[in-house]
Amino acid sequence: MLLRNIRLTLAYDGTNFHGWQRQPNAPTIQACVENAIERVTGLQSTVWASGRTDAGVHAAAQVCNFITECPIPCSNLVKALNDVLPASIRVNASSEVAAAFHARYNARAKVYRYRILQAPVCSPFLWRFVYHYPYALDCTAMAKAARLIEGKHDFTSFAAVGEEQEARRQKSEARIGRAQAQGMVREIFTSRVLSRTKNSMLIYDVRGSGFLHHMVRNIVGTLMEVGRGKIEPDEIRRILKARDRTLAGPTAPALGLCLMRVEY
Amino acid sequence: MLLRNIRLTLAYDGTNFHGWQRQPNAPTIQACVENAIERVTGLQSTVWASGRTDAGVHAAAQVCNFITECPIPCSNLVKALNDVLPASIRVNASSEVAAAFHARYNARAKVYRYRILQAPVCSPFLWRFVYHYPYALDCTAMAKAARLIEGKHDFTSFAAVGEEQEARRQKSEARIGRAQAQGMVREIFTSRVLSRTKNSMLIYDVRGSGFLHHMVRNIVGTLMEVGRGKIEPDEIRRILKARDRTLAGPTAPALGLCLMRVEY
Repeated sequence: MLLRNIRLTLAYDGTNFHGWQRQPNAPTIQACVENAIERVTGLQSTVWASGRTDAGVHAAAQVCNFITECPIPCSNLVKALNDVLPASIRVNASSEVAAAFHARYNARAKVYRYRILQAPVCSPFLWRFVYHYPYALDCTAMAKAARLIEGKHDFTSFAAVGEEQEARRQKSEARIGRAQAQGMVREIFTSRVLSRTKNSMLIYDVRGSGFLHHMVRNIVGTLMEVGRGKIEPDEIRRILKARDRTLAGPTAPALGLCLMRVEY
Repeated sequence: MLLRNIRLTLAYDGTNFHGWQRQPNAPTIQACVENAIERVTGLQSTVWASGRTDAGVHAAAQVCNFITECPIPCSNLVKALNDVLPASIRVNASSEVAAAFHARYNARAKVYRYRILQAPVCSPFLWRFVYHYPYALDCTAMAKAARLIEGKHDFTSFAAVGEEQEARRQKSEARIGRAQAQGMVREIFTSRVLSRTKNSMLIYDVRGSGFLHHMVRNIVGTLMEVGRGKIEPDEIRRILKARDRTLAGPTAPALGLCLMRVEY
């Protein structure tokens, strides 16, 4: 019996799914992918993603892996899985990787994009993939604030409530993953706001070592408070230091968020 | 009582609708728009579109009109209707027009676009709006054939079966519309196939005086037969002359088709 470790690159429209993680009574990406693998290989497999995406969040290139005895060549696997997956989930690539590869624990960086549509009316072809906010935002102030997120910080102020206990629990369990060893600290390599006036789109691009639960959406919610003039750009520093979720802005809606890339 | 004639420009994702026309037990664009108008104005109105779109067909700028006593200014109407319409239907513009304006009978030209995606895998963000055909197509032959559609022709070979009887019936009823007076004859001003290698998209753009039922999709189905090498480009002339639906290709799927513009 030869065990193979298969890595898949997935794209999905998260609108109609209850996030990545398998749940008893709701459609999830993980459940769809695991079911597709079982249909194609005839064998049950658990699929590990680089990270869970929340309900409504999309992915342009999520990475996951699974262990299987199935001998189907990777090139055939892409087509076979796409034949049984719903059109809202696609496998874009498949490769056999070393036994030690784990999509989550080996991830070195992730890139997320958040799209805010500023046009007065949101196109019916776009509504699934943007947060429609047709009111004034000070893009220059937001861009300035976004840069202050860069660097190594404790992101408690931008994490979902309860995330700190979860981090402590994982640390005490002495799991191997780098992310687990670092508690609430993450390193953000780039954090930029750009304005595309041509299509009235305001884009937030962020690349980091890892992200806490709701972290990108909480950063975006806070940047939008800066854009509305309710928070000064420089206050981002103070909010980070305070390690207090109540100081940051609200959680931006899931549908504007897309996992763009995972680096290994 | 002052009657106003209101013209609306609509965009819609037709994927989950049973076409434009109101039906007893299925969601349609017309039903949604009429219901939205009733909710906003408090008055029932019939909405006339430039033409019916079939189930699954999209519109970037469908035009329709309705008569109402409601005094709400047009600028407020856009927002009010969008507030009650589903996200897959949007009103992009509204204006008060002369009493004689009729979205269907006054239409002078319509522009349709059909998108064929040639990439091996169809993005989950695109599948609603393209026909995914990842097999070889001779784009040059298709472009040559497409040009032969231009001009004034009897399009019986490209019309849905039963369309001729319908045309005769409408003619005998002596309706006013230009389209009705011309039977199966339509004028195509431009008919072009273009290839966008960057995103593996093959695009068919057609602008004409009017279109018979299924006409664009039957033209595309025939152009694809040309692309597959099953029909020579020059045979388009013979197919047009024969006035025989069985000579043309199959009807291309609805989801690749979009009504781009209506000219008055």
